[in-house]
Amino acid sequence: MSPLPRLEGIAPDTATVGPGGHLLVGGCDVVDVALRYGTPIYLYDEATIRARARAFREAVGGYPARAAVQYAAKAYCAPWLLRVMAEEGMGLDVVSGGELQVAAGVDFPRERISFHGNNKTGEELELALRERVGRVVIDNLDEIDRLATQAAERGTRQAVLLRVNPAVAARTHEHLQTGAADSKFGLSLSSDDAATGVGMIAERSSLDFRGLHFHIGSQIGEIEPYREALDRAFRFARGLRDRGLPLRELSPGGGYRVRYLPSDTPVDTVAMAHEVAKMVVEIAERHGFAGAVPDLSIEPGRALVASAGLAVYRVGSVKAVPGGRTYVAVDGGMADNIRPTAYGAEYTAVLANRMTHAAEATFAIAGRYCESGDILIREVRLPRPRPGDLVAIPASGAYHLAMASNYNLAPRPAVVVVADGVARLVRRRETYADLVATEV
Amino acid sequence: MSPLPRLEGIAPDTATVGPGGHLLVGGCDVVDVALRYGTPIYLYDEATIRARARAFREAVGGYPARAAVQYAAKAYCAPWLLRVMAEEGMGLDVVSGGELQVAAGVDFPRERISFHGNNKTGEELELALRERVGRVVIDNLDEIDRLATQAAERGTRQAVLLRVNPAVAARTHEHLQTGAADSKFGLSLSSDDAATGVGMIAERSSLDFRGLHFHIGSQIGEIEPYREALDRAFRFARGLRDRGLPLRELSPGGGYRVRYLPSDTPVDTVAMAHEVAKMVVEIAERHGFAGAVPDLSIEPGRALVASAGLAVYRVGSVKAVPGGRTYVAVDGGMADNIRPTAYGAEYTAVLANRMTHAAEATFAIAGRYCESGDILIREVRLPRPRPGDLVAIPASGAYHLAMASNYNLAPRPAVVVVADGVARLVRRRETYADLVATEV
Repeated sequence: MSPLPRLEGIAPDTATVGPGGHLLVGGCDVVDVALRYGTPIYLYDEATIRARARAFREAVGGYPARAAVQYAAKAYCAPWLLRVMAEEGMGLDVVSGGELQVAAGVDFPRERISFHGNNKTGEELELALRERVGRVVIDNLDEIDRLATQAAERGTRQAVLLRVNPAVAARTHEHLQTGAADSKFGLSLSSDDAATGVGMIAERSSLDFRGLHFHIGSQIGEIEPYREALDRAFRFARGLRDRGLPLRELSPGGGYRVRYLPSDTPVDTVAMAHEVAKMVVEIAERHGFAGAVPDLSIEPGRALVASAGLAVYRVGSVKAVPGGRTYVAVDGGMADNIRPTAYGAEYTAVLANRMTHAAEATFAIAGRYCESGDILIREVRLPRPRPGDLVAIPASGAYHLAMASNYNLAPRPAVVVVADGVARLVRRRETYADLVATEV
Repeated sequence: MSPLPRLEGIAPDTATVGPGGHLLVGGCDVVDVALRYGTPIYLYDEATIRARARAFREAVGGYPARAAVQYAAKAYCAPWLLRVMAEEGMGLDVVSGGELQVAAGVDFPRERISFHGNNKTGEELELALRERVGRVVIDNLDEIDRLATQAAERGTRQAVLLRVNPAVAARTHEHLQTGAADSKFGLSLSSDDAATGVGMIAERSSLDFRGLHFHIGSQIGEIEPYREALDRAFRFARGLRDRGLPLRELSPGGGYRVRYLPSDTPVDTVAMAHEVAKMVVEIAERHGFAGAVPDLSIEPGRALVASAGLAVYRVGSVKAVPGGRTYVAVDGGMADNIRPTAYGAEYTAVLANRMTHAAEATFAIAGRYCESGDILIREVRLPRPRPGDLVAIPASGAYHLAMASNYNLAPRPAVVVVADGVARLVRRRETYADLVATEV
């Protein structure tokens, strides 16, 4: 139970109100952190991340075979974060050479790493083989031959999963729906493609076919789409078994919905993961896999880190448009958080330096970038903000910094990890020199 | 007239087909450039940029007072590009300390620089004053006091324009419509706000009120919205004149539409600028400003650089989804070009290594990023692509690299300027080390 009940599951678990009506996270005064390191700044609450990681591991703890929780690094990939995930016994999904390099840099246990992606380059496959990642998740037929050849040249045998597309349309934003029939990801279960793929993998002695992966989308709040997808995957696996190819591993991805707004339906993502794991057993048994249920990986990204992150901005100006909104302009915006512009994502906010003041009216939080669409929040009730106030936006831990740009040549924000009353700078703010570092 | 008539005004002016059916730009073989510098890569054709700059300057050449063409650097800001703009006699709009630093780094003539932005920080205003930029374009009341105080402390007098909002709704994407009544930018002409702002500026001896700026949006293909906005601005200026505040300068912004697709209506942006300039004179005279027409700035961004830029990707895999699209996966995508994901922007493409092959079918160009929405082009007719082919996407010069991220920890692309048969690397590809350079 969060000390800020309205923000339960949205703000970090440790968020509370301290002396002077300041927001505290991880025992640190957010106002102090902002003064010390400047704004905009992102805070991550280590306790929230560790608590989520443990809860997800517990959620699949009763699974009758091996069950792993893989953090999907695309939500946010930083050395300090991967260290925390490794310490918590998590596995890791990477989708690029860059993410794999960061993982290798903190010596993330390689056997717990899966390499995903719909278009891995030759260099990236080479890196995956050299680093001996646990699994390569093959996306398409072109990749099978490429990986098999490269593995053979290195004299290694690579364990692989095949990404399949179960053609399940989960209710979510079209951009986030990855398992619909017409998707760039995976091989279709509705045609011969997936079977062809498994056959091609099985023929290559440098590849070790372990099983299937699918991912049906993001921000999914209901369990039914997983049931449908699992049913299709096991029906397919039955056919494979008849060809002598047992399903040893199965990954039904992640995509569990998180809350961004107090008005969002509360959703227990950990309970969802538990339900998915139970469902795997039940559907496996129904398809005759009793006693041979595959090892399981679930792959949450956003659900592990979104609520741990807090974006903090300083108010520069307040402008009431006659007959329109009152715009509160802050010193960040679409360059550090593209989600409102790109996906119409909605957020809430608090004034970190005036937590005990009552809301007075509805305001729009405008970014500083030269674009009309750069509005972080269209409507939020707040005490009347003044220049100098700190606007804190919770649920900022996933897909903000991961997608941050230098639009308008703005330096990307600093990042601070807070834990037990200590704020630790883990990423320094970019400088103007950084912005032109690659110019020749 | 482009040697590739279908791509007139979309591809660089110098684009043509060379030996072996390869695409040539600036006399350089695009296939060679991609081999030498890798993919994804962005090529800029210097001749196209210079031709556009000259055409815009000519378009306002007959204006009866001083007329400047200011490049809006937010479209793309790089040292080499600002050097070209300076050489062509252009002015410059910057919107951040970062852009101003780059301009200062190439010693862009400061008096030709205007500093815009809806939320300039104190540090940025300080930088603008220290660098003695020609104009600061004030956005809101909070800024007036701040700038006046900072200028007074430095003992300087800063020439300023006031950004006003004429409340004209131009037909364009909502995100790109900046002059609508309810906008975060400028002070409203429909209320007393703008008059209050001018009054506040006039009272401060450290500020020198020169005139007004407005910007009604982007990708505007019709002239009427400018007429309406100009009429409102001059009506307002009449009131100012009666208070003894002459309108010495006027900037009706930019926002001229460019073509992205062969099916887009051809639009002569330079002719639009010419029409806008003529219209300023006509409306000025109608409002009694004959003999005292203000100096003029027009501020194109996209129209100067979009068609000069070409994005080049390599095909990794081709996947036909049963009953769906055929996805051609390339090695870039939403991290280097967020516009399709964020704005539904549409593009065309060619195969740079097979320009003489006839189109065979319709394909989707999918990016490499782990997101369903990462589709660069939903439908384009091409010769059947094969792994290794080069997909070149024209009209990539504006708002691609400017908004590029390291999503999925992908290094941002290299940039090459082509001119007279010489390809010059101006921005090296990021390395994995660059990606973690600011991690502490």
